[in-house]
Amino acid sequence: MTISSTSPDVRNLVAAWLAEDIGRGDVTTNSVVPGEAFGRARLEAREPCVVAGMAVAALCFELTAERFDGMLEFKEVVGDGGRVEAGEVLARIEGPLAPILTAERTALNLLARLCGVATITSRYVDAVAGTKTQIVDTRKTTPGMRNLQKYAVTVGGGSNHRFGLDDGILVKDNHLIAAGGVTEALARARSGAPHGLRIEVEVANLEELKEALDGGVEAILLDNMSPETVAEAVRINEGRALLEVSGGINLDTVRSYAMTGVDLISVGALTHSAPSIDLALEFLESELEE
Amino acid sequence: MTISSTSPDVRNLVAAWLAEDIGRGDVTTNSVVPGEAFGRARLEAREPCVVAGMAVAALCFELTAERFDGMLEFKEVVGDGGRVEAGEVLARIEGPLAPILTAERTALNLLARLCGVATITSRYVDAVAGTKTQIVDTRKTTPGMRNLQKYAVTVGGGSNHRFGLDDGILVKDNHLIAAGGVTEALARARSGAPHGLRIEVEVANLEELKEALDGGVEAILLDNMSPETVAEAVRINEGRALLEVSGGINLDTVRSYAMTGVDLISVGALTHSAPSIDLALEFLESELEE
Amino acid sequence: MTISSTSPDVRNLVAAWLAEDIGRGDVTTNSVVPGEAFGRARLEAREPCVVAGMAVAALCFELTAERFDGMLEFKEVVGDGGRVEAGEVLARIEGPLAPILTAERTALNLLARLCGVATITSRYVDAVAGTKTQIVDTRKTTPGMRNLQKYAVTVGGGSNHRFGLDDGILVKDNHLIAAGGVTEALARARSGAPHGLRIEVEVANLEELKEALDGGVEAILLDNMSPETVAEAVRINEGRALLEVSGGINLDTVRSYAMTGVDLISVGALTHSAPSIDLALEFLESELEE
Amino acid sequence: MTISSTSPDVRNLVAAWLAEDIGRGDVTTNSVVPGEAFGRARLEAREPCVVAGMAVAALCFELTAERFDGMLEFKEVVGDGGRVEAGEVLARIEGPLAPILTAERTALNLLARLCGVATITSRYVDAVAGTKTQIVDTRKTTPGMRNLQKYAVTVGGGSNHRFGLDDGILVKDNHLIAAGGVTEALARARSGAPHGLRIEVEVANLEELKEALDGGVEAILLDNMSPETVAEAVRINEGRALLEVSGGINLDTVRSYAMTGVDLISVGALTHSAPSIDLALEFLESELEE
Amino acid sequence: MTISSTSPDVRNLVAAWLAEDIGRGDVTTNSVVPGEAFGRARLEAREPCVVAGMAVAALCFELTAERFDGMLEFKEVVGDGGRVEAGEVLARIEGPLAPILTAERTALNLLARLCGVATITSRYVDAVAGTKTQIVDTRKTTPGMRNLQKYAVTVGGGSNHRFGLDDGILVKDNHLIAAGGVTEALARARSGAPHGLRIEVEVANLEELKEALDGGVEAILLDNMSPETVAEAVRINEGRALLEVSGGINLDTVRSYAMTGVDLISVGALTHSAPSIDLALEFLESELEE
Amino acid sequence: MTISSTSPDVRNLVAAWLAEDIGRGDVTTNSVVPGEAFGRARLEAREPCVVAGMAVAALCFELTAERFDGMLEFKEVVGDGGRVEAGEVLARIEGPLAPILTAERTALNLLARLCGVATITSRYVDAVAGTKTQIVDTRKTTPGMRNLQKYAVTVGGGSNHRFGLDDGILVKDNHLIAAGGVTEALARARSGAPHGLRIEVEVANLEELKEALDGGVEAILLDNMSPETVAEAVRINEGRALLEVSGGINLDTVRSYAMTGVDLISVGALTHSAPSIDLALEFLESELEE
Repeated sequence: MTISSTSPDVRNLVAAWLAEDIGRGDVTTNSVVPGEAFGRARLEAREPCVVAGMAVAALCFELTAERFDGMLEFKEVVGDGGRVEAGEVLARIEGPLAPILTAERTALNLLARLCGVATITSRYVDAVAGTKTQIVDTRKTTPGMRNLQKYAVTVGGGSNHRFGLDDGILVKDNHLIAAGGVTEALARARSGAPHGLRIEVEVANLEELKEALDGGVEAILLDNMSPETVAEAVRINEGRALLEVSGGINLDTVRSYAMTGVDLISVGALTHSAPSIDLALEFLESELEE
Repeated sequence: MTISSTSPDVRNLVAAWLAEDIGRGDVTTNSVVPGEAFGRARLEAREPCVVAGMAVAALCFELTAERFDGMLEFKEVVGDGGRVEAGEVLARIEGPLAPILTAERTALNLLARLCGVATITSRYVDAVAGTKTQIVDTRKTTPGMRNLQKYAVTVGGGSNHRFGLDDGILVKDNHLIAAGGVTEALARARSGAPHGLRIEVEVANLEELKEALDGGVEAILLDNMSPETVAEAVRINEGRALLEVSGGINLDTVRSYAMTGVDLISVGALTHSAPSIDLALEFLESELEE
Repeated sequence: MTISSTSPDVRNLVAAWLAEDIGRGDVTTNSVVPGEAFGRARLEAREPCVVAGMAVAALCFELTAERFDGMLEFKEVVGDGGRVEAGEVLARIEGPLAPILTAERTALNLLARLCGVATITSRYVDAVAGTKTQIVDTRKTTPGMRNLQKYAVTVGGGSNHRFGLDDGILVKDNHLIAAGGVTEALARARSGAPHGLRIEVEVANLEELKEALDGGVEAILLDNMSPETVAEAVRINEGRALLEVSGGINLDTVRSYAMTGVDLISVGALTHSAPSIDLALEFLESELEE
Repeated sequence: MTISSTSPDVRNLVAAWLAEDIGRGDVTTNSVVPGEAFGRARLEAREPCVVAGMAVAALCFELTAERFDGMLEFKEVVGDGGRVEAGEVLARIEGPLAPILTAERTALNLLARLCGVATITSRYVDAVAGTKTQIVDTRKTTPGMRNLQKYAVTVGGGSNHRFGLDDGILVKDNHLIAAGGVTEALARARSGAPHGLRIEVEVANLEELKEALDGGVEAILLDNMSPETVAEAVRINEGRALLEVSGGINLDTVRSYAMTGVDLISVGALTHSAPSIDLALEFLESELEE
Repeated sequence: MTISSTSPDVRNLVAAWLAEDIGRGDVTTNSVVPGEAFGRARLEAREPCVVAGMAVAALCFELTAERFDGMLEFKEVVGDGGRVEAGEVLARIEGPLAPILTAERTALNLLARLCGVATITSRYVDAVAGTKTQIVDTRKTTPGMRNLQKYAVTVGGGSNHRFGLDDGILVKDNHLIAAGGVTEALARARSGAPHGLRIEVEVANLEELKEALDGGVEAILLDNMSPETVAEAVRINEGRALLEVSGGINLDTVRSYAMTGVDLISVGALTHSAPSIDLALEFLESELEE
Repeated sequence: MTISSTSPDVRNLVAAWLAEDIGRGDVTTNSVVPGEAFGRARLEAREPCVVAGMAVAALCFELTAERFDGMLEFKEVVGDGGRVEAGEVLARIEGPLAPILTAERTALNLLARLCGVATITSRYVDAVAGTKTQIVDTRKTTPGMRNLQKYAVTVGGGSNHRFGLDDGILVKDNHLIAAGGVTEALARARSGAPHGLRIEVEVANLEELKEALDGGVEAILLDNMSPETVAEAVRINEGRALLEVSGGINLDTVRSYAMTGVDLISVGALTHSAPSIDLALEFLESELEE
């Protein structure tokens, strides 16, 4: 997925987020800033980060300019995926000041969060560099921002797990309890689910791993195991199923898991605990249009 | 504000967030879990926190149960504002297993974030205990979740700043540039804005503070000043305007600012960097309904 | 606020209003008017008025032309705020006849009402000319048209009171009953409401006025008092609180109230009883496009 | 049509109108009124009127109570169609005070306008009592309120003309210009429109009346004629087409038109210039729930 | 009605239908097709048909291209109403391959159904060629597609009956039962319905026909009668009411009904059983953009 | 999937479809049928069919009854999956006549189409009885009705293919052209798509089949091959990939394909050419409520 600023989903979300902040109108700007004031601003990073979400930020400013019957120019300086240092300029904005001021907070709120996801993802990806392991996200995303956060994960070099409950089968421990065991659960999954979906099962130990492999599953989620146990799981698997590791993995331990040869390491923190990057909008000058 | 699970705004948001995860349906649960499976689960905290958002979590489960034409019981054990330790039970859920499994991730995603906001807020509030200073939030909220996050701030003991650009006037540095100075900006604000709104101005130093006081503003935001400068500002103010402090304040420094006697300290981190609390849903047992 | 024809709120409202009239399509125009018929029309006032809402009227025609895959030209002759006599032309419209005929009624329905609001407002404003008093509106607006009506009030020279229940605090008699008295009500308002909002209280007599002043309120609504009592209230106030007068004031009495020196006179009739101005669309000629 | 408070259209409109006023929440009520305050209020007319819209008013209070997770009782004292004097009670409301206060303005704004339409309609209907003429409305309705206003017209004893451009054919002078004359217009209407719709043509004089009758139209709108000319038109018509009169008719002249024997008199003022009836909500007492 | 690709109704429907297929994104195209791949395709008929819906098909491709921030060219080769043989090209599409592939199925699903309606309609129309009888549709349309299907009926040479329950009066047998007989039903219809609508009654035999004629109805639906009985009905009617025939008429029998001189024959099969025309999109070549 | 009448998706769709037919109101029923008329009706099949969609039909009547502030009872006699003969009763409906009449057409339009899909599906399923082959649907569904049609396929004994472009990967010939060949396409799919989705490729001949098997695909769509070629493909496959057959298969030929041992036969006609089953609503009696 790429973010398309003209996709109806993205436009509708951004419009709703702008409406959440603007409400009936920006009373400060509307009363204080002359309608004909014109100027330039630059969007800067105040800490190092991987940039993600520039199209969405631009859309915030552009949709707001439409409210004022005006047009502004959002010139991207660094594109998504760029790595910047503190103080670097991400974009220059030129046009009427009112919509720039009105859109500022929503644009920064979004961009700061998406850059945060891309940045933390890139750290995990860097940590496993040289191994065959992919860093993948989870469904532990911020409600309403899943697609954008998952996009930011790919910008940071990660891959995407399921986008929702409807595009992948992942049988977890609770499902096994509800179904009455692995055999029954797998039989039900195989007969009841669309044939285009792989069947993945979560296992808590090596016994369950073997049971799942005997059941012919195509992917296995190794939950909360030590690197040593994971390494043993890789040996047992013999390349049959795709192996995913999850649970309590952090930047300090991720490489030791990757060295076992697993295919995927999923990290909830990419989206539930990504830092918000410090960004700022600096106004350079202002003049009244003549 | 309190969260009303029957407010149309909250219901629509939660329904949209559930739809984001459920999409065309939970293929795993639908194929693996027998429709007649019935059971109990408990919602637990895995780390200490201040609880916020229980009504929204309940709504996730209830709206999902409606999709399955079923009904479940969500029994709240700890209400919003409760302080819990790791391992404590927040709620017990009883009913058909399918909707519980389908709603689980969205409910936890929301609750974990709202508990996070309440928890970090409570730390700031505790840090200024005994002073007259209020901890307030900012507009640096997660897009789409502003009202819920601001509610969680109050649960944690904080107060709310503006809810949007339309219910308060805050003239920032960029507005001053655009308006052509403090005098002009204040004159414009006074004549152009609805009379029900107070006028607050951001100042960067004590000279600007005096200028704002001379202009008769009702609230002043002291931006990025040391505790010493803030103390001096309090003296100069002589109780005339409401004084708010903001910028680079953390748990280590917040008390030294509060000791100066300012009215408000606003902290963006309450909403842009709150931790996501670790929560879990444990299934206790399962049985087929007869 | 200015009406922006590209604001999503305004566009959505106008589209909904057009849909209310057009339904599944204009069966008369679609069957009677040849698709290729082209012509000119002029929009006229049939009685003197202050013009307001031209951008919304233009939007009615433009959005309807889009339905017909056509484009028309709406040339504004008199802008918002212009004062016209009976027979004056407000705009000229040129293009395919079908969308002009289909949009006509909705456009006139809107424009007639907004001109009505601006016109009656201007009469009140004229009546207090030379005094310091501002004429302000109330929340007694037509459901669905609040923002547009409040815009028309400003076009007529008036000012806006609250836009809704969320951007201003006005403690009325019923609130006082519910809260258990002025002291309790003010204490609750001061601690519970966002600090960016002024606190205004309605008082019914001079005793309550003094009580409110003692409570330090920032604005006071003098309800249903005679000009003499209002004059006494102004003396008692000594410039401390903003004073607003309301209740049973009409064009004959408004000046006597303004002469007392109050700050604001709010008039519900600006929006709940504004006359609908008589407007007409005259077709000048018609020809088939070749 | 009757107003059904459970119709999705009515509920959605009322919800949108409440949202227009409530916005992010009623800051006055939320901060000043204790959540547990409970009481009674009565809805009164302050001037004589025909009542219309009680179900919509009730819906305003009920939907608002849902926001507060509460329930209130709206006891209708006078139903739609009732004629009341100044001071009469229309309804009694009992329940938590907060939602009553929050819903009050929207409920009164709606009810005052609908009672106004029913009241003015009833005056026209009374004026033609004893004749065969029906008083009908037009499409000169308030945008967004057409169906409710047309319902109020029937409550006042009037009948409804077209609800929109899609459920009736009315060929006006501009259509004739666009089509190139009566003959061509009627031929086009007959072949192009659904066969379930009658064809009505507007005529400006008796020559056009004859032409229309020769063309076999089923209804004729006599535009802006004197009672004498209308009487002549009735004679010429000999009962063939339905005859409607319109244009500049008021309460003083309407009976003289009705006496001519026309079938319908359409009056734009029923909806574009109906007075807003003065209504009030009186709180009787208040107590805290125990 | 003509299909306007810029009408808000049509755009919203098409956008919703695209969303139904695309969901969170076209994972095949997004992963397999390079973003810069560019090419040409042609849209072909694989069986003879009357073309209808080209503007809607074009809209599918254009709206999808917007999602990819791209633009493609949809060149219509055969317009609505054109009759084509198997193998004929309807349109040529040129542009980025990704949106063409993503939109393909929705576009074909729509176009195949609309061409189907136009094609079957044209067969009925051809079958009654030379008579005065019009072929009309019914309300037995596919939910969600009524307006488009009714448009396709007109493309095929047919006419439209009611578009919904609100733009025509058709009193059926069940209404007669509910009202308590023809006399009562007609009296109620005449007094209760807007005067712009004709009154049509369904009759099951010639006795009822006479009763309806005596009641002065303007149109009569002859339900499930033989051609002989219909011929007798035409004689009895003597041109007074519009006569419509319905019930169990197919391509073999339609002409014998038309020969009786009835005005309208309504055929539910035009929309409830129209064949889906076999169409295909052929890719001609592909190249990477440089 | 099962149809849940309380799922927001289903309710919203049904409400929109009812609105499409009802528009501003059922003028016939509203004027002709007394509001207090009460009665019973039965829903019958007029030809043999497999029943599907009873919950949706019930919802049509129930949602319409809400509009009339009434309640009716819909008693299902035959549930989804039941096989009925001509003349059998599917449901009995009891309550106020007005909503029954108003909802009738939409309910029948929906039910007739869903029963049609279930019925034709059951014929294909019966035709392959005793083989291991599953009958599956395609994305050639009616826009707006995909989920309901796919549900009806399962009622008829079939299985579901992809629900949209986002929950399965199917690389078709056009994708191969765009990607530049099978090897490149598979490599791209494997690296770019979420790991939870199987990769299916369409092949046109046995050479491509071998190439796909070498590429390690998990499912192969054999397009437009004879039963003999399919049998050869089954032999070559040796159970490695899931084999699906598609293209030009009808009720006469489907068994010969199933006998080859393929896993799936997908049939577009299940949804694009299902017959509309002839259903009727019979009113039994009517009486006025006292």
